[in-house]
Amino acid sequence: MNAYRIDLKYVGTDFHGWQSQPSGRGVQDHVEKALKTILRHDVRVTAASRTDTGVHAEHQVATFKTAESYDEKRWIKSLHGLLPDSVGVTSIKPSPESFHPIYSSKAKAYRYRLWLGAERNPMIAPFCWQMYNDCSVEKIREEAKAIVGRHDFTAFCAADSSAKTKVREVFAVEVHEKGPLVDVWIVGGGFLKQMVRILVGTLVEVGTGRSPPGQILRAVQSKNRDDAGKTAPAQGLSLVEIFYDDVPDIAALRGRLSSEYTLKIS
Amino acid sequence: MNAYRIDLKYVGTDFHGWQSQPSGRGVQDHVEKALKTILRHDVRVTAASRTDTGVHAEHQVATFKTAESYDEKRWIKSLHGLLPDSVGVTSIKPSPESFHPIYSSKAKAYRYRLWLGAERNPMIAPFCWQMYNDCSVEKIREEAKAIVGRHDFTAFCAADSSAKTKVREVFAVEVHEKGPLVDVWIVGGGFLKQMVRILVGTLVEVGTGRSPPGQILRAVQSKNRDDAGKTAPAQGLSLVEIFYDDVPDIAALRGRLSSEYTLKIS
Repeated sequence: MNAYRIDLKYVGTDFHGWQSQPSGRGVQDHVEKALKTILRHDVRVTAASRTDTGVHAEHQVATFKTAESYDEKRWIKSLHGLLPDSVGVTSIKPSPESFHPIYSSKAKAYRYRLWLGAERNPMIAPFCWQMYNDCSVEKIREEAKAIVGRHDFTAFCAADSSAKTKVREVFAVEVHEKGPLVDVWIVGGGFLKQMVRILVGTLVEVGTGRSPPGQILRAVQSKNRDDAGKTAPAQGLSLVEIFYDDVPDIAALRGRLSSEYTLKIS
Repeated sequence: MNAYRIDLKYVGTDFHGWQSQPSGRGVQDHVEKALKTILRHDVRVTAASRTDTGVHAEHQVATFKTAESYDEKRWIKSLHGLLPDSVGVTSIKPSPESFHPIYSSKAKAYRYRLWLGAERNPMIAPFCWQMYNDCSVEKIREEAKAIVGRHDFTAFCAADSSAKTKVREVFAVEVHEKGPLVDVWIVGGGFLKQMVRILVGTLVEVGTGRSPPGQILRAVQSKNRDDAGKTAPAQGLSLVEIFYDDVPDIAALRGRLSSEYTLKIS
């Protein structure tokens, strides 16, 4: 058996998250089923991140094993014939046995997209959280600084998490504003279940004045989920990149990501 | 009771089309339910176009009646609080009794969006038909000329249509290419059920060489559904505009529509 790394992207709207589900509606289920058809044996696919129901991935990395002879072009073509249009495969490469999509990763980048326009923009609803309250981007930007660093993120974690430690390191947070479209970029070594969405929910509560500034720090210190904000809706979140070499140069990365992954809406 | 015109837009992905459904999943169901909550009486909403399941509307026009005193700002705010994020209301204005969203309309414009890239682009899957065959835009553009004019479109109509006559007039068709994104714009006086999608399905069969050039004309003449192509998938189609004054100046309209309604993807 040889190991392969498969890089993919998907719109999360139609799926019950990445992970295999009894309903068969996890992205993993679709990919495993398609690979089984192509390779004619059961295939187990392991991904870097278990994205939640409705969360998108502009870059997801996974691995699988097969004894079939390598044919990247044919495999991708066949996968695209079998997978829904909302899942795409960008490459399939032989992978060293030592490579593990989760444990080999040095950093991950997520982007959470808010629409703060006074007018509703339904055409981008599948990709944004539309806020109708007055929400200050300046307050969000200021509050977001408290996320950076090595912290105990217990207050920012889904109740059913099985993580042994809740300590995670966030390397950078950046708030990009482009008219009513506000992107919150978060780059870190690893993330707890729903951590980004709860962080964004807390930022928004500070932005709207529902919580006072300093709420992130207070929740980090109290480790109490009640001190953090509501979980921001899934459709605003995208896993945008996973890094396996060095921890990326954050300044360069932000520039690259924000130009590469911007969906321009007019 | 006073009559009102309501202008709205929606992403069709989550709905079973415009029309009220036993499932309650028509856009009409959502709008009527929300208006009932706001106006405290049953409300019947009549729209210009019964968009199919999965079809989007960048501009839909409808009417309703109420004796409640007019308050556009409050009504829109309340509707946005009650409707899903994927439905937006742009205006609600008093409407003359003589105005009927269907019978007063002079023309409608639709846009069908194809993605002809060799690489799959899953992030735009909710808004495009992604083709993986070689498909010639030049062939599509040439074939599309045959659509323009007053024709019997029997071959391009869903079997369960209840239309008395299948004669319709198409004022203009335009094929815009922007990299792999190909938009087919169709402006006409009225359209049969699934007419635009069957026309696009036929254009694509000519574009891929599956049918020879001249297929549109042959199907118009034979009035045989089998001579037309497959119905193109719903998610590529948007109702973009409805015209109630003069039949629009087509050249000016094309320029305005293609700049106003372009979703730029990078």
